[in-house]
Amino acid sequence: MRGQRTSPLTPLDRFNAFSDGVFAIAITILVLELPVPEGNAHIWQSLADSWPSFLGYFVSFSIIGGVWIQHASMTKWMKAGDTPSYVLNLLLLLFTGLIPFSTRLFVSHIFEDQVSVAVLVYGINMLLATVTLSLLMIYVSKTPDLLSVEVADDELRELYRGRWISIGVNVVALALVVIAPLVAIFLYLLQSLLLMAIPLLTMRRKRAAAQQ
Amino acid sequence: MRGQRTSPLTPLDRFNAFSDGVFAIAITILVLELPVPEGNAHIWQSLADSWPSFLGYFVSFSIIGGVWIQHASMTKWMKAGDTPSYVLNLLLLLFTGLIPFSTRLFVSHIFEDQVSVAVLVYGINMLLATVTLSLLMIYVSKTPDLLSVEVADDELRELYRGRWISIGVNVVALALVVIAPLVAIFLYLLQSLLLMAIPLLTMRRKRAAAQQ
Amino acid sequence: MRGQRTSPLTPLDRFNAFSDGVFAIAITILVLELPVPEGNAHIWQSLADSWPSFLGYFVSFSIIGGVWIQHASMTKWMKAGDTPSYVLNLLLLLFTGLIPFSTRLFVSHIFEDQVSVAVLVYGINMLLATVTLSLLMIYVSKTPDLLSVEVADDELRELYRGRWISIGVNVVALALVVIAPLVAIFLYLLQSLLLMAIPLLTMRRKRAAAQQ
Amino acid sequence: MRGQRTSPLTPLDRFNAFSDGVFAIAITILVLELPVPEGNAHIWQSLADSWPSFLGYFVSFSIIGGVWIQHASMTKWMKAGDTPSYVLNLLLLLFTGLIPFSTRLFVSHIFEDQVSVAVLVYGINMLLATVTLSLLMIYVSKTPDLLSVEVADDELRELYRGRWISIGVNVVALALVVIAPLVAIFLYLLQSLLLMAIPLLTMRRKRAAAQQ
Repeated sequence: MRGQRTSPLTPLDRFNAFSDGVFAIAITILVLELPVPEGNAHIWQSLADSWPSFLGYFVSFSIIGGVWIQHASMTKWMKAGDTPSYVLNLLLLLFTGLIPFSTRLFVSHIFEDQVSVAVLVYGINMLLATVTLSLLMIYVSKTPDLLSVEVADDELRELYRGRWISIGVNVVALALVVIAPLVAIFLYLLQSLLLMAIPLLTMRRKRAAAQQ
Repeated sequence: MRGQRTSPLTPLDRFNAFSDGVFAIAITILVLELPVPEGNAHIWQSLADSWPSFLGYFVSFSIIGGVWIQHASMTKWMKAGDTPSYVLNLLLLLFTGLIPFSTRLFVSHIFEDQVSVAVLVYGINMLLATVTLSLLMIYVSKTPDLLSVEVADDELRELYRGRWISIGVNVVALALVVIAPLVAIFLYLLQSLLLMAIPLLTMRRKRAAAQQ
Repeated sequence: MRGQRTSPLTPLDRFNAFSDGVFAIAITILVLELPVPEGNAHIWQSLADSWPSFLGYFVSFSIIGGVWIQHASMTKWMKAGDTPSYVLNLLLLLFTGLIPFSTRLFVSHIFEDQVSVAVLVYGINMLLATVTLSLLMIYVSKTPDLLSVEVADDELRELYRGRWISIGVNVVALALVVIAPLVAIFLYLLQSLLLMAIPLLTMRRKRAAAQQ
Repeated sequence: MRGQRTSPLTPLDRFNAFSDGVFAIAITILVLELPVPEGNAHIWQSLADSWPSFLGYFVSFSIIGGVWIQHASMTKWMKAGDTPSYVLNLLLLLFTGLIPFSTRLFVSHIFEDQVSVAVLVYGINMLLATVTLSLLMIYVSKTPDLLSVEVADDELRELYRGRWISIGVNVVALALVVIAPLVAIFLYLLQSLLLMAIPLLTMRRKRAAAQQ
């Protein structure tokens, strides 16, 4: 026998680069869904009338951005991938890649009779993305071969709590869709705003603490 | 003479980053082919009627994802590229980049008389991608300058066997197309499902083994 | 308790790769807005008539490229990210991602009555991108945990001056839009040309200095 | 004064990642220009009739791929960028980003009266990309601050010869366009085929030499 069998682990840099690529493309092609007012129409009026498109852009941008932040927080712990983590990641990216589609679906039906069906499809997409991200994070956190650091027990607890909250919010949003689809959309918007606002607010507090 | 001639090898990080970029874009623009139900149509009905588009999205996503996993497993062994490996890689990416096109071709003809021609084009595309990937993997595994580790004999045998199986499955699918195009599509779907399912099933076994 | 709590910092390589991805996609999909002359029309004439599209391509390409250069100059100082810097970065990318949209808006209205509204939307987009970039740069430069080097006082002063100049130019352009929209566009063009030309001119001077 | 002024150099990893992103996107969106035969048309016939689109895909894919290989061969020597190299690179990417546009222009006019104008625009685009790549390579090779290795004199001579050949071929192609546009296209195709074939042929020779 020539040479030694290499490890079954797969490289983390490829895992990260490919994921960053898919996240970046999914988030950037959202802009292709925005309608440009044509001809001599009143531009402000046209833009104001397209508010659902801008709402969809903002909400989906924030959600994909949020998934990316979670993903980067996870790979911070990792030193390698393996085939199951690559496949779970592909499933996460499969549902992330669908977000521009389901965004366009809910945006184009917001004034129609079938708005609740459209928002339901959007919500199911979001839930599947959250669930696959959770499975990936839990698998990684429980597979010592993949970890560069031993994750502290309280960090793991925090991680699990965070994943359950995220799944919970998505299930509640789905339940709301049937009763009041626009409230569900508002919940997605609120989630996006908080995702952006909370770190920016803690930033001030942190800076104040650092200066003492 | 000033300085010393540098090595004819080319950097691996560029090789990886460019390949990850093309794989990520090809896989993400598949979503642009999904038709969004417009107007007041019954959304569930419309989505159900577009099942070929979703089938195409899933199958092609899995196949590109599978090629990417194989590619990353190969570069794990590498420490550099050279011009032939760069060119073989470009050929692989050329056929990978065509997948969104041939996917749309087979999806849009699934109910037409010419379905077998459309699936044949899809199958030829898949076969060409598999063959160029195989050529690249074999070239790399036989070029010591490119390898960071000496690859063990049994790993090489496994690699060759894997490549022949993959080419074999694609040739069988192509042969099937002429007789029964929908069975060929089912074979591609089955291949995708196994590609996703097998690692996830071994995951449980591995975890059980780790806990003993 | 098992293991130690990891740092709240987030990886810089993911921060860079994701940002590079979004910048690269936003800059490359600008080409999708260029109209290809069809049929038997006079091609030179058609291309000449589409000068606003090429102007838009050049100006927006340069502006996104300029933001990317500033961004890379900033991350040169950094050793890590944290959640606020990730979120500020997402906001910057959100406005960068909108540039292909607002470019198409101003290009398609350049001969219309409402040109000033269209250029105003473009200008607001540019201003928001500049402001979020400035906030990100200032936050990073003031957060020692994120810095790999202590930034010199005069470099910080230069950074602040540069950000204020950039915001100032964008505010002036916005003010101009109301009076003379085409002059505002000329200002954006001038800014792009200078951005490209100044480093190329200093290049000659630098080379001359190096040879002495 | 707090801290020391950092170097005016800019990071190479950002330079590479952003360039790889733009090259990968420009090369992958070429597929969006391929027409999918619709309805019950004879698929083989339709595909055969669209040969100019496939020719355009293959030629432009190879040319962008060739630019990328040259670019990676250059950055192999580098340890950092600076502002002029960033700006020259942006200019190269600006013309590379235009290739999907000029490809579509020449493909859609290949059977029209104005084919020579369309191929001329394509040729000018190619020439500008080659010239900016040459300027970038020469600037880098002459700026010691950017180089990780001292480049040998004969390698520099080879680099310059290669750049002049590339510019020469592009000028000849441009001159040919006026007399015989289809011959010029054939020259671009030949250049692409050689770019792919030569390294693959030397591969066999190299392998034979290695086994002796």
